[in-house]
Amino acid sequence: MDSLNLDLINFIIDKKLDKELLRGRFGLEKENTRVDKDGHLALTPHPKAFGNKTDNPYIQTDFSESQIEMITPTFNSIEETYHFLEALQDIVTQELMETGEYLWTSSNPPVLPRDEDIPIAHMEDPLEEMYRTQLGHKYGRKKQLLSGIHYNFSFNENFLKKLYEASLSKDEYKLFKDGLYLKVARNVLKYRWLLIYLTGASPVFNKSYIEQCVALSDHLDEDSRYFPNMNSLRNSVCGYRNDKPFNVSFNSVNEYVQDLQNLVQSKELLSAKEFYSPIRLKPATGENPLQELLDNGIAYLELRMFDLNPLFKNGISLEILKFIHLFLVYMLLKQDEPFNEDEQQQANLDLDTLMMEGLQGSMKVTAVALIDSMQEMLRYINPDDQPMNTLLEHKKNIILNPALSYASIVKAEIQHSSFLHYHLIKAKQYANHSLEAGYKLAGYEDLELSTQLLLKAAVKRGIHFELIDRDDNFVVLTKGDHKEYVKQATKTALDSYSTVLIMENKIVTKEVLKQQGIRVPGGNAYRNLQDAMLDYEVHREKKIVIKPKSTNFGLGITIFTNNFSIEDYQRAFEMAFEHDRTVLLEEFVTGKEYRFLVMGDEVVGILHRVPANIVGDGVRTIEQLIHEKNKDPLRGQGYRTPLEKIQLGEAERLFLKIHSKDPSDIPRLGEVIYLRENSNISTGGDSIDFTDEIPISYKQLAIQSAKAAGATFCGVDMMINDIEQEATNENYSIIEINFNPAIHIHCYPYQGTNRKADDKILDLLFGKIDG
Amino acid sequence: MDSLNLDLINFIIDKKLDKELLRGRFGLEKENTRVDKDGHLALTPHPKAFGNKTDNPYIQTDFSESQIEMITPTFNSIEETYHFLEALQDIVTQELMETGEYLWTSSNPPVLPRDEDIPIAHMEDPLEEMYRTQLGHKYGRKKQLLSGIHYNFSFNENFLKKLYEASLSKDEYKLFKDGLYLKVARNVLKYRWLLIYLTGASPVFNKSYIEQCVALSDHLDEDSRYFPNMNSLRNSVCGYRNDKPFNVSFNSVNEYVQDLQNLVQSKELLSAKEFYSPIRLKPATGENPLQELLDNGIAYLELRMFDLNPLFKNGISLEILKFIHLFLVYMLLKQDEPFNEDEQQQANLDLDTLMMEGLQGSMKVTAVALIDSMQEMLRYINPDDQPMNTLLEHKKNIILNPALSYASIVKAEIQHSSFLHYHLIKAKQYANHSLEAGYKLAGYEDLELSTQLLLKAAVKRGIHFELIDRDDNFVVLTKGDHKEYVKQATKTALDSYSTVLIMENKIVTKEVLKQQGIRVPGGNAYRNLQDAMLDYEVHREKKIVIKPKSTNFGLGITIFTNNFSIEDYQRAFEMAFEHDRTVLLEEFVTGKEYRFLVMGDEVVGILHRVPANIVGDGVRTIEQLIHEKNKDPLRGQGYRTPLEKIQLGEAERLFLKIHSKDPSDIPRLGEVIYLRENSNISTGGDSIDFTDEIPISYKQLAIQSAKAAGATFCGVDMMINDIEQEATNENYSIIEINFNPAIHIHCYPYQGTNRKADDKILDLLFGKIDG
Repeated sequence: MDSLNLDLINFIIDKKLDKELLRGRFGLEKENTRVDKDGHLALTPHPKAFGNKTDNPYIQTDFSESQIEMITPTFNSIEETYHFLEALQDIVTQELMETGEYLWTSSNPPVLPRDEDIPIAHMEDPLEEMYRTQLGHKYGRKKQLLSGIHYNFSFNENFLKKLYEASLSKDEYKLFKDGLYLKVARNVLKYRWLLIYLTGASPVFNKSYIEQCVALSDHLDEDSRYFPNMNSLRNSVCGYRNDKPFNVSFNSVNEYVQDLQNLVQSKELLSAKEFYSPIRLKPATGENPLQELLDNGIAYLELRMFDLNPLFKNGISLEILKFIHLFLVYMLLKQDEPFNEDEQQQANLDLDTLMMEGLQGSMKVTAVALIDSMQEMLRYINPDDQPMNTLLEHKKNIILNPALSYASIVKAEIQHSSFLHYHLIKAKQYANHSLEAGYKLAGYEDLELSTQLLLKAAVKRGIHFELIDRDDNFVVLTKGDHKEYVKQATKTALDSYSTVLIMENKIVTKEVLKQQGIRVPGGNAYRNLQDAMLDYEVHREKKIVIKPKSTNFGLGITIFTNNFSIEDYQRAFEMAFEHDRTVLLEEFVTGKEYRFLVMGDEVVGILHRVPANIVGDGVRTIEQLIHEKNKDPLRGQGYRTPLEKIQLGEAERLFLKIHSKDPSDIPRLGEVIYLRENSNISTGGDSIDFTDEIPISYKQLAIQSAKAAGATFCGVDMMINDIEQEATNENYSIIEINFNPAIHIHCYPYQGTNRKADDKILDLLFGKIDG
Repeated sequence: MDSLNLDLINFIIDKKLDKELLRGRFGLEKENTRVDKDGHLALTPHPKAFGNKTDNPYIQTDFSESQIEMITPTFNSIEETYHFLEALQDIVTQELMETGEYLWTSSNPPVLPRDEDIPIAHMEDPLEEMYRTQLGHKYGRKKQLLSGIHYNFSFNENFLKKLYEASLSKDEYKLFKDGLYLKVARNVLKYRWLLIYLTGASPVFNKSYIEQCVALSDHLDEDSRYFPNMNSLRNSVCGYRNDKPFNVSFNSVNEYVQDLQNLVQSKELLSAKEFYSPIRLKPATGENPLQELLDNGIAYLELRMFDLNPLFKNGISLEILKFIHLFLVYMLLKQDEPFNEDEQQQANLDLDTLMMEGLQGSMKVTAVALIDSMQEMLRYINPDDQPMNTLLEHKKNIILNPALSYASIVKAEIQHSSFLHYHLIKAKQYANHSLEAGYKLAGYEDLELSTQLLLKAAVKRGIHFELIDRDDNFVVLTKGDHKEYVKQATKTALDSYSTVLIMENKIVTKEVLKQQGIRVPGGNAYRNLQDAMLDYEVHREKKIVIKPKSTNFGLGITIFTNNFSIEDYQRAFEMAFEHDRTVLLEEFVTGKEYRFLVMGDEVVGILHRVPANIVGDGVRTIEQLIHEKNKDPLRGQGYRTPLEKIQLGEAERLFLKIHSKDPSDIPRLGEVIYLRENSNISTGGDSIDFTDEIPISYKQLAIQSAKAAGATFCGVDMMINDIEQEATNENYSIIEINFNPAIHIHCYPYQGTNRKADDKILDLLFGKIDG
């Protein structure tokens, strides 16, 4: 085999382009068939929650209605891309689980009905649907259900441009760039057998697959079929291939396009996209791809030969994705080799040989040499990347020990089970992992929970998002021409600035609510002590709070719940005036506090917060019960989870002591032990959903309060004396309206249902998903 | 005369109501005729700028179209009320001066045309206009032009209620309260001659006044007429009186109402409001006043006998207003005295005697005794109020020395001049004071200048305002049913929350503008050093700024204007990353900075700021020129004025030294000497209006920028290379869009015109004033 192109490598290093060589843009597309709880192909329609499938840039259908395709945006790193794939996996899985469906974990189809009963994807465009019908006729629908992963890659544009400039090429830039991508494409085609060897993970299939293939296959058990040494059904003769190997040139874009156009004209192909090449040349936009390629050249390469790997939740691992990236770089830095009709046939033959005989003889030698050569390349361009070097060593190991390959491992595991059972168990395991991921948007865990939830909901229904300022949780959501700027999930264009300012200012809030006849704690604002003193007589027999207008960690606040002297009253004001030039005197309100989440004309959720507590079982100690309660995956530390772990620190120990308890006490069954006075979630408090328990009269008051301030999104904090009673003019009080209410607490409460506040935001911003 | 009611006084003190006794609510109404520059009654219509006169709660017309009535809201202190009157005086005067008119400073009319040429106020309600026409017929229009001040007063409601409760009265509360007010009213009627003696200030009138009066009068000069000892024409027989003294009972509300209804039924009066009593009983609302009085009792008293005093800009002094308040309290605390037909006639006679003979004999003795009694009362209820005691001493002095009375002083001054000339000079002097008050809203100088301007504009056009949170410059503007919450003048409901958030975040702003094809400084945001380093090559030959995302007093900012090494570049990023986890690299933009104030679809003003400077005259030193420039009333200290005084502190002296100058240097004529590097207004910089100089192409860009962010109110900061050139894609750059732009700088620039940004805000919030 040919060695590295050292001239090129040295040139790149010399021009200081080695760092940029390793940059690129990455995108992934992944198909999975949907299955029911028994592993049978789901015959239900594509879930409505994913919106209009042609509008959703992230979640679509492929050939079959039962085949979900997940499409990541392109990112500047494969890590980001991988995380987004995981996010999509979680989002889709969580939705499917609501109706008891799963994503099938194998590239090979699950238990299939008769070919004609496999539902073709219902498309709005009748031509699209007709194309699928024709494909079904031509290849059989079963074959079209083979699923996999496409890997889209382009080099960093700056790298390409600078390389072009440095190379003093006489060609125009487009030709230069096309030349590089064509070289990579040819090399990939030539050596794809190695990639397929290292990624293949579908050695076994179900007996419901295409009859001819099943007839030729061996049994693992009655239902589980295989061919000896075949590690990837879709890359085998029973796989996703054109009827015959078409000869399409990869020597130039012109030839590539010409050959494809000829095949379509001669009706060998229904359209250019029926060309099931393991690699495709792709233009920047998809309107009229071949013409685009001619006009603007290659924008990226699409590798189409990767199996879903049941060993990984997301169907592929980050390491393999990184390996593929390095492999592509390697394909660029190798010597260029002729790749015409003969070489193409040889490459196809190599693959078939691999599928029939496994990795043997000279191919094994070549495989090791290729990895060696990649290691050599790495020493030149990125000598510090020790993890990658280790990964390459590992791949070499797999080449030398075929039992270590993914396909071998999968097959071995199936031997203890069955094709159906094995993959179904995996599907359910991964589904549970996705469910546990819950509120998290993979790759975006640095964002606030409310923002993660909103973005998940956006992705689910196909609203495109872009993080315009990540630190600030500032996103742009786009659906067609409709654009919305959103900060921290609920700061949107639907609230006016003055509305926010009203809510921000407690004096103003109260005034506005009062004017609408809504009950707020009575009281006054004073700008000097004299005025306050004049009102002593008015207040002396009430329960009151005296506090600086801007409360600052509770400084300067006095609460009087009994008769108080004029001297106490004066001292309280003097203290408060030390902290602000305006001091509020407020009625001290009793009752329980509830947070009403109002969105538009609706109370979306109602929460009551309870101080950190545990409930005795008559067996375990307080300390043990805390430990137990903290196992809840909703509890974490540092505001990265909807609830916080209960601490057993100084504050909690002191609180227990005051109440004559000790962490080693064993509370009796059902006894509630509190660990804190305050009910903040941040100190381990519980959030309890009361949405269905609170009478409608209170909900109406919350909505009225929001309307009074003109708010679309707000959290109304209401004190209620007794939720068993309907609201009167006496038994409630609104103590605050908050803009930017947290939504995650209503989606993932300690007790209660997910109130889907994330979806409500999108309903209000973009309209509901049409039925 | 009767003494104080000591039982009542002691009861009040005993019940700790003495503080609340001195509280109250106060309102003022003031009429002035409008005159032209020669002191002739202005025959022009009521200025359009004051909006619809029946809707404007502050500025209306009275009998004549040429007679402006200013109405303060009611306040809890006479100080606030007085300041609001001053605000109205300034606002009206500033507007009138735009067309060369003035507020006439005397209660007595200016030079009048023939009676039939005096324009009756044009009213929307034809009945209102007809009533005025009838009055004109009945009394002559000239008499109706006598102007004055009405003083509305009520006791603190808490005081009344507590007094009622403490007194264990068997009457219902309404009767009790009415009783107190009726007592005050009777006493005021009885002793009003003293008030009129102490406040009368219109001893002279013009020969164009009513013929009979002129015929009987003495001359000061050909045009200036008087009656000996008459100190208040409107309170005299030639004044504003009913044809005959109607006998209306003040013994009970029922009798009062009955008597008035009888007078109307017998056609003696056109309506109850034609009863020109020196004091009126007033209900809380004015819809059907007599019925209201019967139903809900007296809400306040209206005293109607006060002259405009030409010695004071606002027609009355704060001291006199305070004196009147104490007089009213005194009327409550005096012994009650019978006041029936005989006593009413005696009171009228006393007044006529005063007008004919001055303060003589027993009335003089009574006057001194009354003041003595007020002093005695003060010792009981507010012994610490030394200023008031001094004021009472002063009033006693005036009683003993009639030459010290306002009327005597005014008459003496007119003797050196003429009625016309004296009052016209005063009118012009006061007008200049109002003009100098400029941006200030009297009584609200603690508010931001932009808010003061907005409120002035609101008052002018009759939009009601309320300070909902004074510290926060948070106001509610109301016009009919239309309510707007406004904070700091430009934070309104017309901007959405997301718009504000876009402007608040520089990264987002740039992104949004860029997407609309608007030029912003090029650059990138980096979240780690590695990514930044990869881009070194891209930037190395540019002029760039490297800065933390959130700039914090300029810390961590590096500017490279020449080629820079990779080490410098790295160090700059490292420094910036010490201050923020996101660092911006930005193109360093050249040109001059202009602030475009955009409101709606319009560029309202454009300012360029110039560092503190003086211009030489070849005579004075730098220090002297600074002193001279600082005399501009627009310059002050501590952000209470549109411009700040230029300092000659350490920074300025150092700056001069660096430029080889000294404060004692004498710059040559026209030489500009800068005192500062930075152009901030806060360090003495000049604001120069360029609104008319900047080509429209830049204005369109500013408007486009505002639209891109969705902003109604914003300040667009644009760098422009050369304002002589039209905008291209190269020669400008938007560096910031600011929400909450200051408006005062565009209304009161150092150089340029008032761009009326305050009015524009109201146009956008409430619609333009209809023509």
